[in-house]
Amino acid sequence: MSRVTIAPEEDRLNAQIAFAIEIDKLKRIIRRNHLIDGSRRENTAEHSWYVGTLAMVLGEHAPPETDLQRVVAMLLVHDLVEIDAGDTFIYDPVEVAAQAEAETAAAERIFGLLPDDQAGRLRQLWDEFEAMETPEAKFAKALDRFAPILANHHTEGGTWPLFKVRAGQVREKIRIIEEGSPSLGAYARELVELSVARGHLSE
Amino acid sequence: MSRVTIAPEEDRLNAQIAFAIEIDKLKRIIRRNHLIDGSRRENTAEHSWYVGTLAMVLGEHAPPETDLQRVVAMLLVHDLVEIDAGDTFIYDPVEVAAQAEAETAAAERIFGLLPDDQAGRLRQLWDEFEAMETPEAKFAKALDRFAPILANHHTEGGTWPLFKVRAGQVREKIRIIEEGSPSLGAYARELVELSVARGHLSE
Repeated sequence: MSRVTIAPEEDRLNAQIAFAIEIDKLKRIIRRNHLIDGSRRENTAEHSWYVGTLAMVLGEHAPPETDLQRVVAMLLVHDLVEIDAGDTFIYDPVEVAAQAEAETAAAERIFGLLPDDQAGRLRQLWDEFEAMETPEAKFAKALDRFAPILANHHTEGGTWPLFKVRAGQVREKIRIIEEGSPSLGAYARELVELSVARGHLSE
Repeated sequence: MSRVTIAPEEDRLNAQIAFAIEIDKLKRIIRRNHLIDGSRRENTAEHSWYVGTLAMVLGEHAPPETDLQRVVAMLLVHDLVEIDAGDTFIYDPVEVAAQAEAETAAAERIFGLLPDDQAGRLRQLWDEFEAMETPEAKFAKALDRFAPILANHHTEGGTWPLFKVRAGQVREKIRIIEEGSPSLGAYARELVELSVARGHLSE
């Protein structure tokens, strides 16, 4: 829409709307894992909703003092970079290595659509998530890892057999869940062992 | 997964996981409106992510003192009832009337999967959203109405011509946006008039 700029507030709103239009594209980024009913692969926008909502519901499994509202905010924007950089399959080391640079460029461009103060705040949330140092980032990352394990467990292994992922690789990833939440880590470990026992995940 | 219950905390986690598995179904609820690129119809999970994220980005257009983190939380759960009750098309008065009872029953069942304290808190968020009395609920509702107008405007009218919606009906709905945010209401009004001028929305 073409508008005559008459006030700085209007500039801000125009920038925010440009960002709003841009991030709609996250609904078109397709992840490897499936919905829990197995019907189709998940997109990154609905994944972001899912883990954000899990943060509200599973918050008591984070260390006390964790700022859960910050975790929710972090999870809502944690994958926006995928609009430019695409989804990375965490079990593909080549993909993971190539991704960092592309994601940083994506963060520059996408958050950069917003007014500077907001771009800075959202970029900070994303940087914090990636750095995985604060309790908030660790818990957010734990939920981000927990959700696909839950989905795979409930879809006869889901992406695990499909992409020939082995139990040892999954157990390795569970350490990240444990770092953010010991109880969710323990639960994920049970799911994984049960999936192995059922033959949905190979040793 | 069958687990032996050994501690009350484990009961809580089991209930939370049952809820987590249930709400995955929101990704399968299809709304009338399309993505901004026009490629397909939107599902309610990705819509919930979208409006929750908009609350973070457009928060300065809410009245000062609005608790934006509460708005985000409200928007993440505002449509969970659609898992049982389906999406309602706001321009169909018969559908809207039949919906209230179904949604209340859905809220009972779905939030009721959680431990009581959490069920109560989420139910309260949903009731507050529906009642549209607090600044938080009004702003959340404004964003919920704003998003499809933005999408329709950018998809040559989208659902408007498709379902024979007229400009007067849309202008009526804009009052809800204005109640939550005068500046977003004004912006939506501009989008609607521009859509009329372009022939994408009929008088």
